[in-house]
Amino acid sequence: MNIKFVGHILSYLLCIEAILLTPSLAIAVYDGDGTSTAFIGSISLCAIAGAAMYRLTKDYQSQRYYAQEGMITVALAWIVLSVFGALPFWISGQVPSYIDAFFETVSGFTTTGASVLPSVEDLSRSLLFWRSFTHWLGGMGILVFMMAIVPLGRDAGYSLHILRAESPGPSVSKLTPRMGGTARMLYLMYFILSILCLVFYLLGGMPLFEAVCHTFGTAGTGGFGVLNDSFMSYSPYLQWVTTIFMALFGVNFTVYFFLILKEYATALLDEELHLYFGIMIVTSLLITFDIRPMYDTFSESFRHAAFQVSTVMTTTGYATTDFDLWPEFSKMLLILVMIVGACAGSTGGGLKIARVLLLLKTLRRNVLKSIRPRSVQAVLINKRPMDEEVIENTNAYLSAYCITILACVILVSIEGYPFETNVTAVLACFNNIGPGLQMVGPTCNFGFFDPFSKLVLSMAMLLGRLEIFPILAIFSKRAWNRAL
Amino acid sequence: MNIKFVGHILSYLLCIEAILLTPSLAIAVYDGDGTSTAFIGSISLCAIAGAAMYRLTKDYQSQRYYAQEGMITVALAWIVLSVFGALPFWISGQVPSYIDAFFETVSGFTTTGASVLPSVEDLSRSLLFWRSFTHWLGGMGILVFMMAIVPLGRDAGYSLHILRAESPGPSVSKLTPRMGGTARMLYLMYFILSILCLVFYLLGGMPLFEAVCHTFGTAGTGGFGVLNDSFMSYSPYLQWVTTIFMALFGVNFTVYFFLILKEYATALLDEELHLYFGIMIVTSLLITFDIRPMYDTFSESFRHAAFQVSTVMTTTGYATTDFDLWPEFSKMLLILVMIVGACAGSTGGGLKIARVLLLLKTLRRNVLKSIRPRSVQAVLINKRPMDEEVIENTNAYLSAYCITILACVILVSIEGYPFETNVTAVLACFNNIGPGLQMVGPTCNFGFFDPFSKLVLSMAMLLGRLEIFPILAIFSKRAWNRAL
Repeated sequence: MNIKFVGHILSYLLCIEAILLTPSLAIAVYDGDGTSTAFIGSISLCAIAGAAMYRLTKDYQSQRYYAQEGMITVALAWIVLSVFGALPFWISGQVPSYIDAFFETVSGFTTTGASVLPSVEDLSRSLLFWRSFTHWLGGMGILVFMMAIVPLGRDAGYSLHILRAESPGPSVSKLTPRMGGTARMLYLMYFILSILCLVFYLLGGMPLFEAVCHTFGTAGTGGFGVLNDSFMSYSPYLQWVTTIFMALFGVNFTVYFFLILKEYATALLDEELHLYFGIMIVTSLLITFDIRPMYDTFSESFRHAAFQVSTVMTTTGYATTDFDLWPEFSKMLLILVMIVGACAGSTGGGLKIARVLLLLKTLRRNVLKSIRPRSVQAVLINKRPMDEEVIENTNAYLSAYCITILACVILVSIEGYPFETNVTAVLACFNNIGPGLQMVGPTCNFGFFDPFSKLVLSMAMLLGRLEIFPILAIFSKRAWNRAL
Repeated sequence: MNIKFVGHILSYLLCIEAILLTPSLAIAVYDGDGTSTAFIGSISLCAIAGAAMYRLTKDYQSQRYYAQEGMITVALAWIVLSVFGALPFWISGQVPSYIDAFFETVSGFTTTGASVLPSVEDLSRSLLFWRSFTHWLGGMGILVFMMAIVPLGRDAGYSLHILRAESPGPSVSKLTPRMGGTARMLYLMYFILSILCLVFYLLGGMPLFEAVCHTFGTAGTGGFGVLNDSFMSYSPYLQWVTTIFMALFGVNFTVYFFLILKEYATALLDEELHLYFGIMIVTSLLITFDIRPMYDTFSESFRHAAFQVSTVMTTTGYATTDFDLWPEFSKMLLILVMIVGACAGSTGGGLKIARVLLLLKTLRRNVLKSIRPRSVQAVLINKRPMDEEVIENTNAYLSAYCITILACVILVSIEGYPFETNVTAVLACFNNIGPGLQMVGPTCNFGFFDPFSKLVLSMAMLLGRLEIFPILAIFSKRAWNRAL
């Protein structure tokens, strides 16, 4: 375990976090809302901790850096950033409990969007900005961001391991031969799409501050807003813009990369893309008919259905209506797309479409294999046979997913809230969605849970965002073994 | 597809079912309860259908019989037996709807024990006997029963494929070199344990008829009883006898085989056995403390906790108390053991302890593998490295399990009952337990579902009992391919 180099990377991250907190400080100073000292304090603490860690780890060696170090770096980075990112909420006194502030920050960075706040409109704009900004940073990955801007170490090996551990989905393809280049390319596409989203919001008459915050929330598929009623009071135009941009940010970014390269066939004939939009459209239509009696016109019920499917499937978590009041079938379809999630290599969470595709095709293959055990059947995706190891890893991920979710639900159920609340709270946190059903429905918040459950749910968000293994790795004695 | 031989096996089964219906006819005649004609009619129909099919398939060839034929035989056998087994309920008019009668029979053969009847005490004793008898037959497997008594065909190949497809759990070990011998050995042990159970019931003062029916239900880990309040009104002695015998029937029968062979170490050092009793004891104790305030004494709350854990974990489904009223944490633990289930190679259902053990160990291995991708880590069970194919199959089974359960829950939710009802109804049917929570809790029944949901739940019971693949195979065009 190359602990010095891990520490060194963390020291950079803390300094970057100090810098990332400055726009919020600027808003605090401009608004004179009394949160300036909270931001100055938080920035100072980040900078001091970062500088101290930098000095302690100055004699690092960048050579020995393998998967093990990558996992531990990513897990610790996300925990440390959340621990420090929670400071402004807590120091300002606007979120009095530190556990609450930590939950809110983890929810931000992991792009979950679950909140403990009964009324977000009471929060200062500076804090609202920071809250939404964490979504944007967490969406594409904070370490990916760091790699895009800091050319740390000559050795490129480490960045691949970090990118692998941080990026969601079954596999990371290198877009450019150098990892730093891939990171920059991802952020460039992310930035351009975000600007587009912002422009469409402004064209719809959304005030600048709200538009910026909602762009962060949409782009990161996070879900933090600035209004108590989420998107309910916005115009149908703005709701459709959000529906479409959420869906776009749930697409695998390599599709956009191929579009830029003008390889249209590769981009558009992707099976994952087809299944993604296929599930989205079919589910939206089924729900439209199921909820039709609840709304005045067909177009209104279609708008609500499409928005809610897009928000839940891309794991964003905005809402235009209280879907907890929908019929059971529609709610169950939402739970289904909650679990399914967005595409691999997008900013969305969940199991990922690529995995679902692989699981369904593998199930079909396994039925055939059970009929004829000796026949060799390859699983084809995009007409290419999949490596058996990828299939194994996907099955292994599903079983880790089931075990982790079951464990979290049992821990949360100690508090004694009803079944639907516990199950959907864990699913909504683990899949980084935000709202669940019943007591954690779209008009409710997570504030009523006790600190223990909040910590369990925070852990669920991190487990979901980092896809389980990095977080489990920090609990493994062998990962800390110095000798290796 | 050797369809003639499959049909020939089915013809035998129908004749056997006709014979198995005669004890109930005897009771009907003895009681003079007016169900004699229903039984005579059902027996005649079974015999006629069996004889007709026998004639049609007389020129069968037993050579070409592979996994494919085994899967289809087992799936069709269970469906055909349930279709005919439902006749007495329906013809007698005591279960007026055929769908209800079919549900009840599938529930019997699959040892689920979920009932559509609001009051079982209104049923004639002859029908109650048949209802409980199906549990006993289904517990160890109807085709295994057939193989134990009918030496069909010289070629032993077919029986292995049937045993593999019908027996629950990740692997079938041959107990004796010949499959017919294994089947007889299994039924012998099953018979002896059942007699023991019956004796203990009679010693506790249970009337003979009730004792016989409850022995069927306990041995098959089914759960059909003869009283409306299940085991609530029986003495603590009888409740403890049931707790212990349910637990014993949930043990892998190879353990008993090794005990008979006096290989005590092999039998008792089995990791599956340890995990099985470990989970059972720990869960019982946790629940005992959680429900302590609801009962007068510690011993009473321990008795209820142990009974309910044993009944749910072995997927039997009796109840001594309405556990739907228990605190959320205890209910969640029951859902956990619902999913976990009993040992492989027992009469119980669920995911099976052997699989859970493998999944947990594989998760641990995969965490280590994620830390050091190049290291080769074997998964050890009973100190023997597991074949990677077994691990793959287990992971594949889990993903098939998740997909199937999710699909069933969505189909059942069309009807619009609450989330907890739908989820636990599907889990209780799929894992062959019987009662779930909320509207399908231990004091309720499944009668309120509409025919479509009842068919989905019947299918869930068959999918769970036959471990998914045989049932999916009958929907695969390739399985019916004549050429192969």
